[in-house]
Formats: sequence, C-alpha cells, structure tokens
Amino acid sequence: MSDRVTAELAARLPAGALLTDPDSVARYAHDDAEWAPFGKPLAVVRPTRTEDVAAVVRVCAEAGVPVVGRGAGTGLSGGANAVDGCVVVSFEAMNAILEINPREQLAVVQPGVVNDDLRAACREHGAWYPPDPASSPWSTIGGNVSTNAGGVCCVKYGVTRDYVLGLQAVVGGGDVVRLGRRTAKGVAGYDLCGLFVGSEGTLGLVTEITVKLLPGLRAPERTVVGSFDSLAEAGEAVAAVAAGGVVPSALELLDKHCLEAVDAWKNMGLSAEGNVLLLGRSDTPGEAGEQEVDALLRCFDEAGATWSARSTDQHEADALFAARRLAYPALERLGPVLTEDVCVPRADVPEMLRRIEEAARRHDTHIANIAHAGDGNLHPLIITPPGDDAARQRAQRAFDDIVDDALSLGGTVTGEHGVGLLKRKGLHAELSPEVVAMHHAVKNALDPHGIFNPGKVFGTP
Amino acid sequence: MSDRVTAELAARLPAGALLTDPDSVARYAHDDAEWAPFGKPLAVVRPTRTEDVAAVVRVCAEAGVPVVGRGAGTGLSGGANAVDGCVVVSFEAMNAILEINPREQLAVVQPGVVNDDLRAACREHGAWYPPDPASSPWSTIGGNVSTNAGGVCCVKYGVTRDYVLGLQAVVGGGDVVRLGRRTAKGVAGYDLCGLFVGSEGTLGLVTEITVKLLPGLRAPERTVVGSFDSLAEAGEAVAAVAAGGVVPSALELLDKHCLEAVDAWKNMGLSAEGNVLLLGRSDTPGEAGEQEVDALLRCFDEAGATWSARSTDQHEADALFAARRLAYPALERLGPVLTEDVCVPRADVPEMLRRIEEAARRHDTHIANIAHAGDGNLHPLIITPPGDDAARQRAQRAFDDIVDDALSLGGTVTGEHGVGLLKRKGLHAELSPEVVAMHHAVKNALDPHGIFNPGKVFGTP
Repeated sequence: MSDRVTAELAARLPAGALLTDPDSVARYAHDDAEWAPFGKPLAVVRPTRTEDVAAVVRVCAEAGVPVVGRGAGTGLSGGANAVDGCVVVSFEAMNAILEINPREQLAVVQPGVVNDDLRAACREHGAWYPPDPASSPWSTIGGNVSTNAGGVCCVKYGVTRDYVLGLQAVVGGGDVVRLGRRTAKGVAGYDLCGLFVGSEGTLGLVTEITVKLLPGLRAPERTVVGSFDSLAEAGEAVAAVAAGGVVPSALELLDKHCLEAVDAWKNMGLSAEGNVLLLGRSDTPGEAGEQEVDALLRCFDEAGATWSARSTDQHEADALFAARRLAYPALERLGPVLTEDVCVPRADVPEMLRRIEEAARRHDTHIANIAHAGDGNLHPLIITPPGDDAARQRAQRAFDDIVDDALSLGGTVTGEHGVGLLKRKGLHAELSPEVVAMHHAVKNALDPHGIFNPGKVFGTP
Repeated sequence: MSDRVTAELAARLPAGALLTDPDSVARYAHDDAEWAPFGKPLAVVRPTRTEDVAAVVRVCAEAGVPVVGRGAGTGLSGGANAVDGCVVVSFEAMNAILEINPREQLAVVQPGVVNDDLRAACREHGAWYPPDPASSPWSTIGGNVSTNAGGVCCVKYGVTRDYVLGLQAVVGGGDVVRLGRRTAKGVAGYDLCGLFVGSEGTLGLVTEITVKLLPGLRAPERTVVGSFDSLAEAGEAVAAVAAGGVVPSALELLDKHCLEAVDAWKNMGLSAEGNVLLLGRSDTPGEAGEQEVDALLRCFDEAGATWSARSTDQHEADALFAARRLAYPALERLGPVLTEDVCVPRADVPEMLRRIEEAARRHDTHIANIAHAGDGNLHPLIITPPGDDAARQRAQRAFDDIVDDALSLGGTVTGEHGVGLLKRKGLHAELSPEVVAMHHAVKNALDPHGIFNPGKVFGTP
C-alpha cells in the first residue's frame, strides 16, 4: 500500500516536492524534544501551494495514512514527531509574506515564514507583531500557531492566539476552508479559528495565517537586572511585581546552570553576576515607564537581591536577552534535555521554584531553570549525561513530580510548548474525564478520517 | 409529556426556582431583538446554583426538551428567544461576584452579574475589566460571554473573548465541566473555553466565568468631538485615523437621527451640534496622549469636519458618551428597530456608510446610524412605524442589502451582537458550506442530545 501512496503523491505533486530517500526522511522525523519517541515517515512533502497540501490530504485520507505537519522543528514536546508510516508535511517552502497592511493592522503569511522575518518585515511597514518565542530566529508562524506559542513579551502583550485573526486550512478529506476574519471584530459562528490555534496539527493543516499587528514601531525598552542568591528569593521578587500591579514588557529568570552553560559556549562572563538573574523590561513611554522601572527595582531589592541595576548600556541589555535566548541551546550541549513548561499562579512562583529544587534533590537530578517568570511560566530543564539510563529514570520521576506540583498549585502542565507527546499523561491529570471526552468528540467531528497527527495531545501515552 | 417534565423539574429544584404561570413565562420569551420571532416556553427556571442548572439539563436531555439560556435579555439578534416548549434558564439569581484577585489579575463571577457591577467592584480592588458593551448598565457577563460582546473601548482593548480565561459549564446530558484556566498562559488541549465564548448557548450553559483583569485603575480619558455634514465625511475621518496608526480608546459615530431621538427623550440639545458626530477618546497618559488627541482632531479636520474640539469639561464629555449609550433605547421609542451589526475593514467605513445611505433611499426606509466606528463596526438601525407592514418589508430588503454590501467589502455580518435568529441567512452567505458543515459537526459532537438553543446561529432561517 505504501508504494501506491507514494506513487499517488508523486503523480499529484510538482517535481521536487516529494522526498522518500531514507536520509531526507530521517531529517524530518522529529522536532527538538530530545526525550520524545518518534517513528519513521513513509515520505516527506514540501508543498509550495495550498493545492499541494490539499492533494496530500486527499491521498492520505483515502489511504488512511497519518499526516504530520511541521514548521521549523523547534518544538519541545514532540508535537511534530513522525508516527510510523506517516507523511510529514514540512512548510519550509511556503514562506511568503503575502500582505502587510498597517491600516487594517494585519498581515497575511504562509505558515513557513520565520517569526523574526515577519517581525522585521512589519517593522519596515511601521507595525509590530508582538509574539516572540525564544525560538523566534528559527521557528515559523505556522509552528507558533500550532502550539499557540508564547514568548518573552507575552507577560504584557499576550500569546499567539491573541494575534491570529484568520486561517486558511486543509481539513477533513482535503477541503480548503477559511476560518476567522480580516475585520477588527466578528462573531459569525463558532471561533473555529481560535480552536485551530494550539491544536498541534490534530484538526488539519494550516496553509495561510492572518495575524493582527499593533500600529507603530515598538517603543524602546528600559532594562533592569536583579541578582539573587536563591531561586526562592528571585521567585519572591516575581510575586512582588505581580502583587504591585506592575506589568513589565518582559520578566525573565535565568539560574546559575543556564548562566554557566551560556558562558561555556559563548564566554559572556554571566555566571560571575550571581546565582539567579531576573531580567526585567518596561516599554511604557515617558514618566510612567520610569515609575515601572523603579517599581521593578524596588521589588527586586525588597525580595533580597544581592544587587540590582538599571542597564544604561543598550548593547549590554540586548546581550542579556540574547543570553536568555541562547540558554536552551547552550544547555542542550551538555546532554539530552527533558523540558518542563509548567505555568502556575504568579503568587505561587516562589513555592513552585522551591518544589523544583526539592525535586532535583529528591531524585538526584541536574535541573536548570529558565522562566518567563512574570507569567508564572517556568521551564525547569532536566539534563542527564548522555547514555546514563539510571539518570534518565530519575529525571523522568522529577519531571512527573514537577507536573504534579504545578497542578496541586492550581497551575497547568503546559504554558506554551504544547502537549505533544511529553505532556499527554499530564493532560489527563489536568483535565477531567468529561473534558477529555469533549476533546475526543471535537477531534472525531473535525477529523473523521483520523489522519491528522494521530496520538498527539490526548492520545494514550 | 410536558406535565411530566415540569413535575420532574419541580421535584428537583428549590422552591421558587421554577416558573410556569403564563405571565411569568411570557416575560422570558424573548430578548430585545424586536424583529425576531419567538416561541412559548414550557417553563422558566431561575437557578441559584450550578447543581440546579445541571438538574435542569439532565431532565431536559432525558425528555428531549430544548434549553434556552438567558442573561438580562438585552440581546439584539434573538439569540435568547424561546422556542416552543423549551425551558428558559434565566441566570438573574446567579449574580454573585465570587472572587476579585488583582495579584493574579482575574475575577470569578456567576453569569448573572451585571457588567457595570463587575466593573465597579473591580475598581474598588484597583483593577479594571475592560469590555463595555453599550448595554453595560443592564447586560450580564453571562450574556456578554454567550455573544462575545464588544463595546466602546474594544477598539483599543479587545472584546469579551480576550478577557475570558476559564468557564464552568453544564454540557452534554448534565455534566459539569471546567474549561480554560486561572494561569496567565496555558495550552493544555483545545481552546474549548474560547469555543464556548460566542457560541450563543448552543453548546451548553455557562455557570461560572473567570475573567482576566488589567491591573490598576483606568487612566483618565481625554475626549474630542468632531461634527460633520455627512456620514461619508465622518467615515473618511475614521479611515484617516486608522491610516494614521492612531489607536483611540473610543471612536464612536452618532448621526442626526440618533441625536434627535436622544434629544426628544432627554432634551440634551445634541442635534444642534451637527448632522453627524464623531466622539473620540484617548486614555494614553502624558505627552503621548496629547499627541493622540491632536492626531484625532487633525484627522477630523482634514476629512471636512464643520467643527472639532477637545472637550475641557469632563461632565460634558461624559454626557456625550451617555448619549451614545442611550441612542438605542431612544430610537426604540420611535418604533420597532431592526438592528444591523456589520463590521467592515476600517478603510471601507466611508464606502459602507455611503452604501447604507443608498439602501435607505433605494428602499425608502428610515435608517439611523450608530457605530463603533474605529472598529469598522456599524449599527445602521432601521426604524419602521408601528403596524406598517409595507414599511417592514422595505426595511427587511434594506437589511439584506446592507448584509450583502458588508460581505462584498470583505466584512462580516455580525461584529458583536451575534447571529441569533436575525443573521442566520447572513451567516450562510458569509461562511462556505464546508465551514458550516464544521459548525454542525462541532455542535453535534458537543450537544449530542440536540437540546441547547436549537435553531439558533446556523439553523435554517
């Protein structure tokens, strides 16, 4: 059967769109979630047009072959991992920015456009697309939409779903549909557009995205830094910022392990600055922005910062945020990283950080912490020496404990990375059986052939 | 059968919760959409607890009796109108504010809480709930959620869905479920919470709502007024504001018919001010706010305003916005109002206003215009003399033409009021058959008994 499927695909697709040689196929078999299992794709398709995507879905629906969509493969939960015998649809060649319209405050893009490329293009038109995942130099808008990606400025500006106005998608057995709208408001029917955002490819393949822009260039940001002896003290500072009603444009946490990993790679001398750094920003113009900066520094100091300062050097400030962005790849150099993504109420950030440290001690594991701290979105990263199976088992137990702790604090198992494969058990712990049943009902209703990214999100782990 | 159903309800509900006498039942038979048909309910239930709602749904699911949820009945599309033999569930007695938590920037409310009451309570806690439909003194958060209500400040702050973090709802055959979250971010599963927002009671009954708040009190607003000879000139000013990248905190339009109706009722002397008024506001603090005000006035003047001014008298400014809020009830005093709610791209506001005037002339109808103009969300209100059937037929034709015009400009048939009964034909014109089929699939999946507000939104007109 698989030969027939690849023959059908070859017949319907433009030359060069279909890859079946083992090396190519292997390159598209998984995303960046090093711990998640993956299968062997039957083939990879790199479509250049929506019609190509529709053709793939028609062939696969007919044959009952799974279809797994894929952006840049920077996902951290295994959401884009291949299942055996699937067709991977990689959107890298559908990377055109179709429209940037500052007057209507929107842009229309193909899914393969890299996040930073869209933001740069908007800037040229005097507009701003806020969502900025740490992967923004590499990850694509299509992937961002599939996971409802968050990012650094989300603490003030919200997440990807808040900026998706409309979608074109290939659904069902190959229908091309438009969901959502181009107008500022609209309530004609169910919010199927919002439903597709964050659905991790389980409801269809997104082939075009209309995003909302903010008018004007982003205001310049002021940067503050606080250094803390302990995670708990840094957590108290985060809780104090929330309690004070301050909304920074970024509030990021980096612990010693991250700082050392970046230093080891890029020699930036960060780990000399302290055990735990909080990086805060304000983009509020004028006197109000000054007051926000003062409030952030006050929160840092009152929580016990060993030092805190406003950065007067833009180059230095940008380097700190670049280090934040590099922390994940820097840690990956040390060994396979098991990535957490819990999100807890802001007031519980210190308690959650304490529990993460306890989990590390209890299970004798190495856990580095990066966090979108202002959102309560923590990324404890569990690092194991390559090839150490006992360490992997301990890491998995720490991972499970952290998930349980987040839920017991009223949090969620995934703030922005998505469920993919790694958080399926957590999903079932977070949602009631009735809500899981609603998920299955929606999935079956919109994917009657059961071909779109099967087994992900709420499949059985 | 109906006797058995009311007997079952009486047995399961607290004393006083069930109403079956004809006068009471008639009072709950329809919302404020004067043109929409409505049926005769079997009974009305005023629950005080989620358990009561679950009991009603269990009885109705078993008996196959329709359930129609209802807030304050201020809806303008017939979404809360009874169908024959249904049970109306009115949430007026579930009006407790359960939690206001400025630190986590959220509030938890029962669905019957009046919008302005929530906003006042938030103010006391130093927080702000932005969504402000014109009906805010009367409409409830539950109703706002069901229609994904917009409002005056949406042009800057977004609509109800942008503020709903989580819901408790009674679904299926009477299951009580929690959708969404309390954390700042979260991507665990499909956005079923967002799907319920704006679903107009067709997927279940919402019994508790967790909304996002903005920290701090709202900044004071500066108000500007522009007077124009024609709708088209006012529309050009609106398009110029969008083209200039200015984001006012309100940009409302009121035409002569509205001004005269308010004058006739409240004797405010507004119609002496001009044919068409634009009311603009900026809540940006400091110098940036001054620049926004200047930019608004410049846009007004360049589009041909006969006069424009910054209001220096807060009392006068508030009176103008109060007049905006009163325009709809003022017009209702003149005769049955057929309410339009189209939303078009901002650049097409002048063209859409021209087409509305043409439709009024072509069909010899009386059309008053209010608009959330800055969003492109227009409310042409077609007024007919009571009892004039020929005028009603002309009004319906004008209504249909306006819907067609909005769609031809890339707009939507409903910006914020919902589809209800009045926009069902428009919905089918706006959405492709494949997307309508997706709606039916989702509806059937989540409402397997087919009891929740049947016939609304995408039912056959």
